[in-house]
Amino acid sequence: SRSLRLAVIPGDGIGQEVVAEGLKVLSAALPADVKLETTEYDLGARLYHRTGETLPDAVLEELKGHDAILLGAIGDPSVPSGVLERGLLLKLRFAFDHHINLRPGKLFPGVTSPLAGDPKIDFVVVREGTEGPYVGNGGTLRTGTEHEVATEVSLNTAFGIERVVRDAYRRAQARDRKKLTLVHKNNVLVHAGHLWTRIFERVGREFPEVTTDYLHVDAATIFFVTQPERFDVIVTDNLFGDILTDLAAAVTGGIGLAASGNINPSGAFPSMFEPVHGSAPDIAGQGKADPTATVLSVAMLLEHLGYTAEAAAVEAAVAADLAERSGARSTSEVGDALAARVSG
Amino acid sequence: SRSLRLAVIPGDGIGQEVVAEGLKVLSAALPADVKLETTEYDLGARLYHRTGETLPDAVLEELKGHDAILLGAIGDPSVPSGVLERGLLLKLRFAFDHHINLRPGKLFPGVTSPLAGDPKIDFVVVREGTEGPYVGNGGTLRTGTEHEVATEVSLNTAFGIERVVRDAYRRAQARDRKKLTLVHKNNVLVHAGHLWTRIFERVGREFPEVTTDYLHVDAATIFFVTQPERFDVIVTDNLFGDILTDLAAAVTGGIGLAASGNINPSGAFPSMFEPVHGSAPDIAGQGKADPTATVLSVAMLLEHLGYTAEAAAVEAAVAADLAERSGARSTSEVGDALAARVSG
Ligand SMILES: CC(C)[C@H](C(=O)O)[C@@H](O)C(=O)O
Ligand SMILES: CC(C)[C@H](C(=O)O)[C@@H](O)C(=O)O
Repeated sequence: SRSLRLAVIPGDGIGQEVVAEGLKVLSAALPADVKLETTEYDLGARLYHRTGETLPDAVLEELKGHDAILLGAIGDPSVPSGVLERGLLLKLRFAFDHHINLRPGKLFPGVTSPLAGDPKIDFVVVREGTEGPYVGNGGTLRTGTEHEVATEVSLNTAFGIERVVRDAYRRAQARDRKKLTLVHKNNVLVHAGHLWTRIFERVGREFPEVTTDYLHVDAATIFFVTQPERFDVIVTDNLFGDILTDLAAAVTGGIGLAASGNINPSGAFPSMFEPVHGSAPDIAGQGKADPTATVLSVAMLLEHLGYTAEAAAVEAAVAADLAERSGARSTSEVGDALAARVSG
Repeated sequence: SRSLRLAVIPGDGIGQEVVAEGLKVLSAALPADVKLETTEYDLGARLYHRTGETLPDAVLEELKGHDAILLGAIGDPSVPSGVLERGLLLKLRFAFDHHINLRPGKLFPGVTSPLAGDPKIDFVVVREGTEGPYVGNGGTLRTGTEHEVATEVSLNTAFGIERVVRDAYRRAQARDRKKLTLVHKNNVLVHAGHLWTRIFERVGREFPEVTTDYLHVDAATIFFVTQPERFDVIVTDNLFGDILTDLAAAVTGGIGLAASGNINPSGAFPSMFEPVHGSAPDIAGQGKADPTATVLSVAMLLEHLGYTAEAAAVEAAVAADLAERSGARSTSEVGDALAARVSG
């Protein structure tokens, strides 16, 4: 019999609640002969306050022995901004070389968009996950004085760009519309921007069927709200991808529904799946959080591990649930409903 | 009698057309005893193709002798991306220390927002204009090879941040709601982000009446579409400001209406006023461009030079025009209508 060794990092705030529902649906979706073995890791604000650690080396080692990671949310107001983000979430993305940060932007039937006119939205953002301004390269000089200088260095490599660009072309090639948009800011960030642009054009020659275009990041935000239908696959750098995918979540009905995968396609290290939303400490512990984003992240996890039919079943359950939603339900009521649909 | 020495840089694409209407309205608005002296500078793609120059030193010197600059738009597909932006537009912003890049986000009555539910939007973004990832500090190594590395360095100084933050507090203090939001990404860009945050908090002690909050840039894009009413004054870095103000333009009816001022409050160098939109080569020369953004930039120019009543008259003319719009009009028809309202 097969097994799925899953590392679970509920994290902070609503992370615990939404992950519980994600696991419920995962269990319901997996084929009967697959044994789900979960190991929970208590990382986040609690561990940090207890020990000062964000990601102990031993835990990082153990995580490597898993097939995938399911993460809830990281971050708490009691911890200085950046400590858990850099020390835990980004550390995992970098240590496990999660260079494909995959974020669908899909408006499900029945979901209300804040945009007027009932737009059709179905694109996917392929965000680079291991480079750009996220590398943590920077510092301060004359700290705390009126002469302080702070730098942030964006690092971009041909190697790193080419692999994510090629992955995005492959995804575009596999979709109906076969359209790929590069988003950058190559009129200002000319060094990184032109490197992205050159590689985008060169790799494009391998995919003659894919239609391409380029948008500056500022212009892209305009089209996200005025013409979201124009997008099919988008490839972009780590920071622009961060910004655009929150905007994408907003126009497709909110971050309660936005899923993501931090993927290492080589399989050398486990990939990690997480909702795009944060830990939402204001509503934590109240059973109010919508677990749908986590459940859709579970669908991405299943897809990544080759459980294609099961992934489709989870997504279909979410689609059916969203189409029929009415009235407020608790976190676990949504999870129960989705698990029931998947099993039934 | 008084004079207003205005340098005019129509630039590329629709720049020419919209600037002509801006000047029409400016002439109509100025008090009778003010002599408007304009000098036009033919900068942009044409000059670049003719001479290879983007901003000749002699022109830069001459521009200093003016009270203000009105700019149309810069950029043309025939010129490599970045050449005119860095060599002309950004060069002016940096040479004249335009550290306050002011961009109102206002939904005028009668204008349709792409957002559902008829939101009330009236905020202003104070974008830093001379630092951050815009400094042009970066480069490439092993250019053109598979081992290429490209960097972009964001430079941030206490001096540069403090002056824009204090300016933003003053603007917030002068408004009804007295609310100031800092937007950055201090959980990832910890060096620059924490410097911004520390200065924001310290300067805030001088403005006890101003309510403050902080948003990560990704979260800010969500609120721009789901809850734009929550914003009053926003202060942010150069790149985040670039992105957010295009999004602001989109939700307030489009970049055809979005004005901006590149301001040096010391008056040591002329400030520069320009629509947020680009040169739109696809519609250039067809009399289709909406000159309203340029006219609203003229209102900001008047305000900056102390012509407060005249600035208000121009804005009122735009508001009245927008409230009554119906059917398509040409660029000059809109300009004529606005000039008539201002004179009448
Ligand atoms: C929490 C933060 C570090 C993270 C990011 O910036 O990538 C988040 O915003 C996301 O999009 O996953
Ligand atoms: C044209 C470009 C250099 C410019 C910028 O990035 O600042 C533009 O987008 C703007 O917002 O004025």
